[in-house]
Formats: sequence, structure tokens, C-alpha cells
Amino acid sequence: MSAVSSGAASTPAGGVDGLDAIMRRGGAALRRLMARTEEHLERVTAQAGTPLAVHANAMVAAGGKRLRPLLVLLAAASTGEAPDTAEGEERLVRAAVAVELVHSATLVHDDLIDGAPLRRGSPTVAAAAGRKTAIATGDLLFSRAFAQLALNEDGAQLEALSQASSALAEGELLQREDAYATHVPLDRYLRRCELKTAALFDAACRLGALTAGASAALADALGAFARRIGLAFQMLDDVLDVSGPVERTGKSRGTDLLDGTVTLPFILARAREPELAAVELRSLSGAREAEALCERIAATGALDEARECALTVVAEAKASLPGILPAGRSVLLGLVADAVVERYR
Amino acid sequence: MSAVSSGAASTPAGGVDGLDAIMRRGGAALRRLMARTEEHLERVTAQAGTPLAVHANAMVAAGGKRLRPLLVLLAAASTGEAPDTAEGEERLVRAAVAVELVHSATLVHDDLIDGAPLRRGSPTVAAAAGRKTAIATGDLLFSRAFAQLALNEDGAQLEALSQASSALAEGELLQREDAYATHVPLDRYLRRCELKTAALFDAACRLGALTAGASAALADALGAFARRIGLAFQMLDDVLDVSGPVERTGKSRGTDLLDGTVTLPFILARAREPELAAVELRSLSGAREAEALCERIAATGALDEARECALTVVAEAKASLPGILPAGRSVLLGLVADAVVERYR
Repeated sequence: MSAVSSGAASTPAGGVDGLDAIMRRGGAALRRLMARTEEHLERVTAQAGTPLAVHANAMVAAGGKRLRPLLVLLAAASTGEAPDTAEGEERLVRAAVAVELVHSATLVHDDLIDGAPLRRGSPTVAAAAGRKTAIATGDLLFSRAFAQLALNEDGAQLEALSQASSALAEGELLQREDAYATHVPLDRYLRRCELKTAALFDAACRLGALTAGASAALADALGAFARRIGLAFQMLDDVLDVSGPVERTGKSRGTDLLDGTVTLPFILARAREPELAAVELRSLSGAREAEALCERIAATGALDEARECALTVVAEAKASLPGILPAGRSVLLGLVADAVVERYR
Repeated sequence: MSAVSSGAASTPAGGVDGLDAIMRRGGAALRRLMARTEEHLERVTAQAGTPLAVHANAMVAAGGKRLRPLLVLLAAASTGEAPDTAEGEERLVRAAVAVELVHSATLVHDDLIDGAPLRRGSPTVAAAAGRKTAIATGDLLFSRAFAQLALNEDGAQLEALSQASSALAEGELLQREDAYATHVPLDRYLRRCELKTAALFDAACRLGALTAGASAALADALGAFARRIGLAFQMLDDVLDVSGPVERTGKSRGTDLLDGTVTLPFILARAREPELAAVELRSLSGAREAEALCERIAATGALDEARECALTVVAEAKASLPGILPAGRSVLLGLVADAVVERYR
């Protein structure tokens, strides 16, 4: 039986207040495993020698939601077989660490690609140390991720992580290919979300399940659940880019559009107002024009429709849980689904 | 017993003429395994979806010496335990492919970092498709490398590759830290060579040995042999940057110095002519001034000394072989050592 409470004892409340609530509900074991994950992340990046320690450690130490490691831990607990030995917990923590390191590596490279000045309120590696250092730092974080997971000596786990890591890079390439393409079709957008976001969510739950010794079928099912959560997460993130407000997102509205990235709100708005396809994104002169375009998208009602799409995907994810897990063991994963939506309310 | 001839039947000739000679001496089995490695590389990169297929495939298809895959295959054969089943050969080929994919990933990122226009006579990914695509293409090649090796389901193999991959990135970071530092000490230069070049050579031989089921001790010893070869390879490459000729290197003399990278010839020349430490590399105005600096380095006699250093390292590597392998089984690895030197004669 899992060392982490699967939440069976408590009735799911109507509202959740995000990931903190899950940490509280998960009990002491979950908090301990998350704390070990943090320590381990710190150790792996600090250990890697002076040049890395500076940038990789700063990147990882700056925090973030740690949503992906949380999914690893919760998926393991949900199987009812989560490890309760020190060695078993170490394997689980390594998987959580590996997923977060891949995520961090991607952020370092994405920030460089996007020319972003800030991440989590601090200068990005690219902004602080230049693009050459950012490339190498990202590469190092990727390598460390695989080095950590290799210690678990399980080919299936490594395959899951490397598939996700490939998907992230393919998603970035697809986004480059589609840059400024105002006619990009919906299925292509969805494919990009799968690659850029959903695949690593999938890997997180899959790794948690595999670490706990779950069957391949259960690992697949939990992966599919997480994939939907990831898809919804990305959709809602794309809504926020158009809806703002700035105080919440920390960046001006329409940043993606300025970068030539066409996402769900634009695609849905285009169906309602076909002339939008004629907008020349390259000629947007700056934040003010991007904001005007956001207003135009919002005026079509596309934002509500995009939110509805995301909520539907989350609802499908939650609806899949009873077929996968006994009711008592799916509560916390269900709350993660809620928390993803909650963030955007 | 190995399917690849270890060269026991033939007496090592006084001269070798490079890697082609090794391919001939290695016999049909080696040629077949190298051909399978090529096919596999083609398949892995072509398989990965349209955006990747374009750039990653072009990168890998453009060829190169395939020195690292060759080391994987020869190390496996040298153990006398190289696989002779289809599945065993597949594992060996996967290891060879994984090492070459990591090497290719590094080249894509290094070319971007160095702003190089050409690689193997073709435009670099960065030059052909822009830096954003180059970052993602390199990431993808890294991910594919680990995905391939994960199929071998051997934690020790994955640890070897991820250690080397981390080392490559750390080496690049170190090089950034030391950029334009004309006083960089010799040991720091050697450390950079270890990270940027020797570590992947080490991993190549180590993976070959592990794939063949060799003991950890033999894998370590073959790794240490390859590490020396890699170190010498890098030293000689650094000599070429200063010595030219341009027709041979395909780039103007002193390219590294223009980029602020201080290497062995400069370090040895500085010991003979201390005023060199006062050279302001940042103020080199272009190829002509870089060439003049190369002449100044050459005039100190440092190039011969650097070549001697490299030859000593290769000799040490070759001298280590009798302690590691029966004489008959070390012939081809010895020829690789010779070929590394031969390239620079």
C-alpha cells in the first residue's frame, strides 16, 4: 500500500484551492517526497561543477509549480503500490527529478528561442549569461535528467522520458514551421500541444506508475489521463496570453501573436471572423497592436469557446479515472485536474 | 567469439592509411555492422517526423568520419565476446547509433554557438534554418540518442552516455567561461579537452564493451584507452587550427583564437614568449590578424611541442593495450590510435 495517502479518507470538496490543497491532502508522506525531490534537484544541479552550478542551479532553484514532479508522485501513489522502502522512494524521487530537469532544460532553451527576458521573476539564463551559455546549460540539464533516470535501470522508464523529450523538441520545430501561419489548422495546433506540453505530462504519470511497478496497461491509462490534463493546461495558457490580465500573466497580452505563434483563441476566432486569416502577424508593430488584435479575438467570443474546449478535455480526463483506478485512489489526481482549471478562473 | 575479426591474423603494418584501412582489416562483419549503423542512423532521424527529418537527417546523412561508432564496434569486438546473434548485434548497433547521435547533437549546437556557416561542406542547421530550429534539432538528436540506448535496457550503458553528454555541455560552458582568457592554465585546457572530446570517446569504447557483456573493469580500461585517444585527437585538432593549411582544414587559420578560444599551441607558445599573454584577442580584427598571431605562435616552436604532447598521449594509450587485451585482440584499436595521429601528418 502506498506511503502517500491517496485521499480515500476525505470526501472531495466542491472547490479546491490549487496545488497547495493537494499537498495538504496528500499527507506527510507526499510532503516528504516533494521535499526530497527539491533537495535532490538542488543536489544534482549543484553537484555538476562550477559552470553548471551557477546557471542550472539558479534555474531549478527559482522554483515553479513543480506540477510534473507532483504528477509523478501522485501517479505512483494512485497505483496502491507506491514504494515504501528507502530504495523504492529513491527511485520514485529520481523519476520526479528527471521529469523536472527535462522541463527546466526545455524552459532554458525556449526562453532563448523566444528571447524572453524573465522567467519566474528572475532573468532567464539567456538574458543573464548569453545565448551560448543558455544552449549549453539546457543541454546539461537534459543530460543530467537522463543520468538520474538511468540509475533506476529500467528501459521502459527511459523510453518514456526520451519519447517526451523528443516530443518537446519536435513541438518546438513544428512551432517554428508554423510561425506566422494565420491559416494553421486546428488539428495541427492540437498536435503541437501534444508535443510541447501533453507528452511530458504523460511521461510524468507513466514514470510514477512504472516506478511503483504498475502494469504497462495501468501506466498507459495514467499517461493518457495526464496527456489530457497537459492538453487542457496548454489550451488555457494560450487563452491567458490573449485574455490577460497583465498583472496575472506578467507579460503583455498577445506575446505569442507577436512571436508569430497562432493558438486556439485565434483559430476559433478565425472560424467566426474569417478575415482574421488575412492579418499579417509579422507586421504587428508592438505590444499596442498585439493588444488590439487580442481585443478583436475576444470580441468574437472565441475566448469562452477556447475555455470550454479546455474544460471539456479536463472533464474527459476526470471521467476516465473511474475506469482506471478504484474511487479512493483517484482523488488526488482528480484534484490536479481541477487545479489546472482553477488556475485560470 | 567476436563476429568482427580483431585483426589477430594479420601483422600490424608499419604504416596505416587511416580508418579505411581499419574497415578493410576488420573484415566483412565490421563492414556489415557499420553499414547497419548507417542505415539505423538514417532510419532514426527520418522516422522522427517531418520537421526533424529535414534538418536532423541532413545533419546525420552528411556523414563524417563515424569514428565514435567505429570505436563502439571495435571495443565490442576486442572483448572477444562481441554478440553474434541478431538481437545482440542490434544492441551493439543501437549503442553505436546513440553515440553518433549525441555527437551530431553537439555539432548542431556547437555550430550555432560558434556561428559556423559550414559543416562537412554543407550549410550548418543554424545557417540553413536559423538558430531556433538549430536549438530544437540538437535537442531532438539528444533525445533520440537516449531513446535508442534505452531500448538496450541497461542502466550502466545509459549512465555512460549521459555522463559523456553532461561532460560535453560542461566543456562548452567551461569554454565560454574561459573565452578570451589568454592566461588560461594548461590543466584547465586539458580539463576542457576531457569534457568536450575525451568523455565521448571514453563512452564509445565503454558502451561497446558493456554491450558485449564485458566486465566493468574491462569497460573502464577500454574507456581510459579511448579517453587518451580523444585527448590527443583534440590536441591535434587545436594544432591544425593554428598550423593550417586552409586547404586542409576548410577554415582560415586562427578561427579558434578569433572566437576567443585559447588552446594548447597558444599556451605552450606563451611559456616560451610570455608577452603573448598580453595579446588582446577581442581586438583581433579578422582573419588576417588571426593569421599573423598564428605565425607568431608557430615561430616559438610551440606547434611541434604540441604535436609531441599529442603523440605522447597516443603512445601512452597504445602502451596501455597489452595490459588490457590479448595481443591479437587489440590490433584494430591500436590502428585507430595510429589513424588519429595519421590524420595530422
